[in-house]
Amino acid sequence: MKSFSVSTQTLQRLPMYLAYLRTLPATESRVSASSIASALNLNDVQVRKDLAAVSSSGRPKVGYPIEVLRDELESFLGYHNVDSAIIVGAGHLGRALLNYGGFKTYGLEILAAFDANEELAGQEGGRILHLSKLSDMCARLHPRIGIITVPAEAAQQVCNLMVKCGIEAIWNFAPVHLRVDEKIFVTNENMAVHLAVISNYLRASMRADKLPNTFD
Amino acid sequence: MKSFSVSTQTLQRLPMYLAYLRTLPATESRVSASSIASALNLNDVQVRKDLAAVSSSGRPKVGYPIEVLRDELESFLGYHNVDSAIIVGAGHLGRALLNYGGFKTYGLEILAAFDANEELAGQEGGRILHLSKLSDMCARLHPRIGIITVPAEAAQQVCNLMVKCGIEAIWNFAPVHLRVDEKIFVTNENMAVHLAVISNYLRASMRADKLPNTFD
Repeated sequence: MKSFSVSTQTLQRLPMYLAYLRTLPATESRVSASSIASALNLNDVQVRKDLAAVSSSGRPKVGYPIEVLRDELESFLGYHNVDSAIIVGAGHLGRALLNYGGFKTYGLEILAAFDANEELAGQEGGRILHLSKLSDMCARLHPRIGIITVPAEAAQQVCNLMVKCGIEAIWNFAPVHLRVDEKIFVTNENMAVHLAVISNYLRASMRADKLPNTFD
Repeated sequence: MKSFSVSTQTLQRLPMYLAYLRTLPATESRVSASSIASALNLNDVQVRKDLAAVSSSGRPKVGYPIEVLRDELESFLGYHNVDSAIIVGAGHLGRALLNYGGFKTYGLEILAAFDANEELAGQEGGRILHLSKLSDMCARLHPRIGIITVPAEAAQQVCNLMVKCGIEAIWNFAPVHLRVDEKIFVTNENMAVHLAVISNYLRASMRADKLPNTFD
């Protein structure tokens, strides 16, 4: 169960470690956490912790065998078993995700975006398909993750369809609570909350600026 | 500094509490955390904690004065001082955020999206403007938050421009590390990491399913 306990912060750094290991000359066989840390300008303890979460090949004062660690990172990041996802909803958000280049870094592939609007089919280099093709593609390619980027009122219906097609995890951008069987994993994404956190930070720091006045 | 310590989970529930309080009849003057919890099908302790983070008006066994609590929630959520933001980059992600309806719930307003591509100006009901208009709008309306949805190679330049225009906090979607003065607050958004967390969960649960075999 190690992989689930890894934080998003750690997940963000893992591709950096892998990229660094790939730059090391073939003549070297071992690398230490502290040399990775100094090369990437990161905290020593943090690198040690990150690597411990995905690797069991490190030895004190000896370091990691480079090739093994590289394999462990690649396997953790899913390079050896690509996970695929489909999107339903080919509006701006759906298209933004479809075109987002960063998923490959994590061994993830977005197969296509589906939409009920027939006019959108064929757009984005043929990667937008009509919703009626969803069950076909799922039967053929077995994507495990479904991304919902439809308006709130259509989300539950889309969710039901995804589950029927064998989707096991849902990344939901629609502002509704989805009713699903408990074996389906649902993550709700609320873009507004991220911005609200930033806004709250600004308000808090504004009040902090003013604090000294209360002691005048 | 209470507002900054509130978690995103709490922030997600606050608008629900406010919406519920608004449904209560004017004849009632007090409400208890447990009645809110049961009405919204939430955990009692969680509601108590959430409200404690934004309100100091609750009394044991008496509950909260409805009107005061409503005011506290509205003020915390920024209904009384709308925070405004601007977007630079009017591609799919920029447009998705520009059209996202959920920001209002948190007292946030996206004023406009700017783009260096002249052909986009005027689109989305006139809410996309040419980048040359950015400093004018900032001088006039003083938005405090800048959202960067341009390709990686343009992000640092856009960031510098935003800071010059008085932006205090940046929500960065470009996959680059921005160099800024430490008084500017930067939050990096990596969409791929969210999906990677879901994918890792699936892989972990798959391994968990197989675990019993190891004890056969």
